[in-house]
Amino acid sequence: MLPYKSLIQLNRDSDVSLYVQLCNSFISLITDGTLQPKDVLPSTRILSELIGLNRNTVKLAYEELISQGWAESVERKGIFVFSKLPVLEKVHKDLSMKSSEIPEKSFLWTNPFLDRKGSDNFQQSVLTIDDGFPDVRLTPIDLLMREYRSISKKFYGKNFLKYGYPNGSEHLRVALCRYLATTRGLAVDPQNLLITKGSQMGIYLSTQLLLKPSDYIAVGTSNYHSADEIFRYSGAHLLRIPVDEYGMDIDFLEVVLKHKTIKAVYIIPHHHFPTTVTMSMERRLKLMKLAKEYRFAIIEDDYDFDFHYNNKPYIPLASIDHNRNVIYIGSVTKTFAPALRIGFMIADPSFIEAASSLRQLIDKQGDSLLEEAFSSLFNNGEMERHFRKSLKIYRQRRDLFCEILKTDFNDIITFKIPEGGLAIWSIFDKSISLSDLSQKVAKKGLKIADGSFYNNEVFSPNGLRLGFASLTPQEIEQSLEILRKNI
Amino acid sequence: MLPYKSLIQLNRDSDVSLYVQLCNSFISLITDGTLQPKDVLPSTRILSELIGLNRNTVKLAYEELISQGWAESVERKGIFVFSKLPVLEKVHKDLSMKSSEIPEKSFLWTNPFLDRKGSDNFQQSVLTIDDGFPDVRLTPIDLLMREYRSISKKFYGKNFLKYGYPNGSEHLRVALCRYLATTRGLAVDPQNLLITKGSQMGIYLSTQLLLKPSDYIAVGTSNYHSADEIFRYSGAHLLRIPVDEYGMDIDFLEVVLKHKTIKAVYIIPHHHFPTTVTMSMERRLKLMKLAKEYRFAIIEDDYDFDFHYNNKPYIPLASIDHNRNVIYIGSVTKTFAPALRIGFMIADPSFIEAASSLRQLIDKQGDSLLEEAFSSLFNNGEMERHFRKSLKIYRQRRDLFCEILKTDFNDIITFKIPEGGLAIWSIFDKSISLSDLSQKVAKKGLKIADGSFYNNEVFSPNGLRLGFASLTPQEIEQSLEILRKNI
Repeated sequence: MLPYKSLIQLNRDSDVSLYVQLCNSFISLITDGTLQPKDVLPSTRILSELIGLNRNTVKLAYEELISQGWAESVERKGIFVFSKLPVLEKVHKDLSMKSSEIPEKSFLWTNPFLDRKGSDNFQQSVLTIDDGFPDVRLTPIDLLMREYRSISKKFYGKNFLKYGYPNGSEHLRVALCRYLATTRGLAVDPQNLLITKGSQMGIYLSTQLLLKPSDYIAVGTSNYHSADEIFRYSGAHLLRIPVDEYGMDIDFLEVVLKHKTIKAVYIIPHHHFPTTVTMSMERRLKLMKLAKEYRFAIIEDDYDFDFHYNNKPYIPLASIDHNRNVIYIGSVTKTFAPALRIGFMIADPSFIEAASSLRQLIDKQGDSLLEEAFSSLFNNGEMERHFRKSLKIYRQRRDLFCEILKTDFNDIITFKIPEGGLAIWSIFDKSISLSDLSQKVAKKGLKIADGSFYNNEVFSPNGLRLGFASLTPQEIEQSLEILRKNI
Repeated sequence: MLPYKSLIQLNRDSDVSLYVQLCNSFISLITDGTLQPKDVLPSTRILSELIGLNRNTVKLAYEELISQGWAESVERKGIFVFSKLPVLEKVHKDLSMKSSEIPEKSFLWTNPFLDRKGSDNFQQSVLTIDDGFPDVRLTPIDLLMREYRSISKKFYGKNFLKYGYPNGSEHLRVALCRYLATTRGLAVDPQNLLITKGSQMGIYLSTQLLLKPSDYIAVGTSNYHSADEIFRYSGAHLLRIPVDEYGMDIDFLEVVLKHKTIKAVYIIPHHHFPTTVTMSMERRLKLMKLAKEYRFAIIEDDYDFDFHYNNKPYIPLASIDHNRNVIYIGSVTKTFAPALRIGFMIADPSFIEAASSLRQLIDKQGDSLLEEAFSSLFNNGEMERHFRKSLKIYRQRRDLFCEILKTDFNDIITFKIPEGGLAIWSIFDKSISLSDLSQKVAKKGLKIADGSFYNNEVFSPNGLRLGFASLTPQEIEQSLEILRKNI
C-alpha cells in the first residue's frame, strides 16, 4: 500500500470541506500516475484510521470519486481506480519537477496589456447606478424565445446549426439595411454590412485593419476607455484632441494634421463618451472635409443612436459620407440586452470583406440562431415596438433622475440634461472623493463606480456617468437618497 | 420641379426590378440632399410620363419609399419626403465628389492577409462530402430550447441578459471541469478555464498572447489551414516540422530548436489535421521534455477528443503537464452544432486572465444564455447522452464509408481507417485532378472540396478529408456512387 499518510495532506482550516480535499488528493495521485487504472484504493476503515478522518468523510470522498468517473466500485472487492481511464504509463515520472521549477509566466506571453477596468462587477448588487446600461427587465425575452422555437422547427435540415458566414446572417443584414435606412438615412446594401458581436467587435476589427504599430489615431481627451485599450493593443499611438460642448475640436485636429500623419479618427458624435456631448453639424462637415484632404479613416461609434429623446437626431456621418472613408459602428446590445451581442459595422464592401476575413480568424462566425431571431424581430416590427416602448420609459426615468439631481444635489453635482443615451454625465464637487463615496454607499447597499473608469492620462474630472435607464422610479429615488445621505 | 429625367437613371437589363431601382434613385436623391424633408414628390402620372415607366411601377416605388420611412402620403396633397427625417442641411454639397475621386481602398487598411479559403460554401448543396462536420440533424435542438425556456423564466432580474464575465459562465466552467476530469483526466479548476467561441477563438487568443511579429512557431508540414492563417496574421514565422504516421517528428524539432528560438509549438496530437494521425506517447513525452528545456509553449488543439471509436484514447498532454506550459484548446461545436460556438481554453490562471482581458477587448463576452443552457445540458447528463448516441451513429457511418472506399475505390484512393474524428484522410491517385473532379461531380449534385484547403507551400498531397459523419448511410452510398462514376 502507498504511504497515504504522507501523500495526503489535508488542511483543516481551509474553507474547502475535508471530503473534497481528500477527493482532490486522490485525483492528483491518479493524474500524476502514482495511482494507475485498476489500482485498488484502501478500504474506508483503513484509510480513516491512517489519516485520522471520520470514516463517513472518506466514504463521501470515494462516492465523489466514483460519481466523477475517477473510481469504480467492484462488488465484494472494493473501490478501484476506474479501469477505463486513459493509461498514463507513468510518463510524468521523467518530467516530475518541484513547483519552484515552474517557469516564470512572463515567457509565456508577450503582450501584457492593460488591466481590466470597468463595470463587470456591477451585476450582482441589488441597487446599482451603472454606467448607462439598459433595463434588461424590459427585454421582451418571450418574443425571442418564440422566434427561437419557430426557427428551430422551420429550417430545412437544420441549416442554421451548420457553419455560417463570417459576415453574418443574410436575413439580418437585409433587415438591418432597411432599419438603418428608415431610422438614420443610411442607404447601404448588405455587402456594406458585417454583423458583429456588439460594437466592441466592430471597434476591434476596424482597429486591427487600420492601424499598425506606431501609427497615430486621434481620439478625444476624454474617451471611451475600452476603445482606447483596443487602440493601444494594436500598438498605435493615441493623439488626444480636446472635446468641448460641441464635441471634438476639429480646428485643433486640423493643426495636428499639418504635423502628423493620422491613420484614423475615432469619434462618438451622437453622444460622446463619457460626456454625452453631441458633435455640431459644422464640425462634422469639417471633419469629413479633412478626412478627404488628409486621407484618414473616421471610425464613427454610434452605439446609442436609438436613444434620442428629442425629435430630430443628427444623421450619422456615414449617411453623408460620399468619400467612403467612414466606418460606422452600431449595436443592438444597448437596445435589446447586453448579453445578446448583436452589433454591426458599415463600410465600403472591400473593407467589410477584409473585416469578415479577420472575424473568421477570430471566431469563424456569429450566433446564427440569434441572428435569425433578430432578423424576424426586425421584420415583424417587434424590435421597433420594443425600442419605442423602452424609449418612452427611459425618458421618464431620465426626467425623474435629473429632477432629483437638480433639487437635492444642486450644490454638489454639475450636469446637463442629456438629449439622448442612458446616462447623465455628472461632475462632482472637488471636495468629494468618489473612491471614498463608492465604498461608503456600498455598505448601504448601493453600488456606484469610483470614477476611475473615465479617467486617463490627461482627463480626471471627478465625474461619473449616472445611468438612469436600468432603475425603476422607486429604485431611482432609493438610490439617490442613499447617495445624498452619504455625501 | 427637379430634372427627374436626367436625375433618375434606370437600367432595363438589370436583375433588379424597375420599381426597386426607382425607389433607390429617390433614396439617393434624399441622402445626397437633392430632396429635402417635406419636399413634394412628382405625381405618379407626371413621373411615369417623364421617365417612360408604367404608372403602377411608380406607385410601387412610392409605396416602398413610404413603407421604408423615406416618404409619407398626405391626404389630398400628394407624396412628400418624410418630414421627420434628419435634416441634411445640404451639407454634402460642399463635399460632393465624382466617383473617380473615391480614394483607393488600400489606404484604408494595412493588413491585407490571406484570402478566405475553406468550407463555407458547403452548406447549401443537398449531397455534400464535407471536411468532417457533425450531422446537425442529430443535434438535440429541442433540449436546448427547453433549457432556454427554463432559463428565461428562472433567473431573478434576468441577470443572464446583463453584461457577463469575459471568461464565461461560472456554471459552465464548473460543469466543463467535471466533464474534462471524467473524460480525459484533466484536473483543473474553473480559474484555469476560459469559455471561447469554438476552438478558433482559443487559437486566436493564445497566438495573440504568445507571438510577436518575427517570432517562430513550429507547426506540422501539413497543418490546419485556419491555424496557419492565425499564426501568419500575428506576424510570426512558421517553421514546418515533418509529420509521419506517429505525428510530428519531435527529433526533427529538437534539431531545429538548437538553432532557432521557438516561442510555441502547435500540435493536434489526438488526430492531426488533415491526416488524422495520432501522436505517439513517446513523442508526446519528448515534446514535453523539450518544452521544459527550451521554454516554449505547446498549443494543444484537441478539437475532436470526444470522437474516438476505440476504447482508450491517449490522455491529452495538458493532463500530464506539470510544467504548466501547455495551452489546451477544445470545443463542443463539433459535438453539438457548429453554429453554437462553445469552446474552451485551459492554461495557467495568469495566462487565462490575460486571455480573458484580450477577449474582453474583442467582444466583451460570450453568449450567456447559450453558456447557461450548455451548463444545464452537461449537468443533467443530456450532453453526454447525445455524445454517446452520435458516437455510435458515426462509428457505423465510418465503417460503411470505409467499406465502400475499400471495395469500390481500391485502385484510386489510399486511406487508413481513422480511430477517431469525423473524416477519412484519402489520398487520390496522381492521375486524378481533384479540381476537375469536384467540378464534374458538382454537376451531378455532389459537392466535394478541390483539395486546395489542405495544401500549403510544402504540402500538396492530392488528398481530401472525406467527412462521413454528416451523411446518412443512404446518402453515403449515393455520394460515393456519384464519385465513383465520375472518376
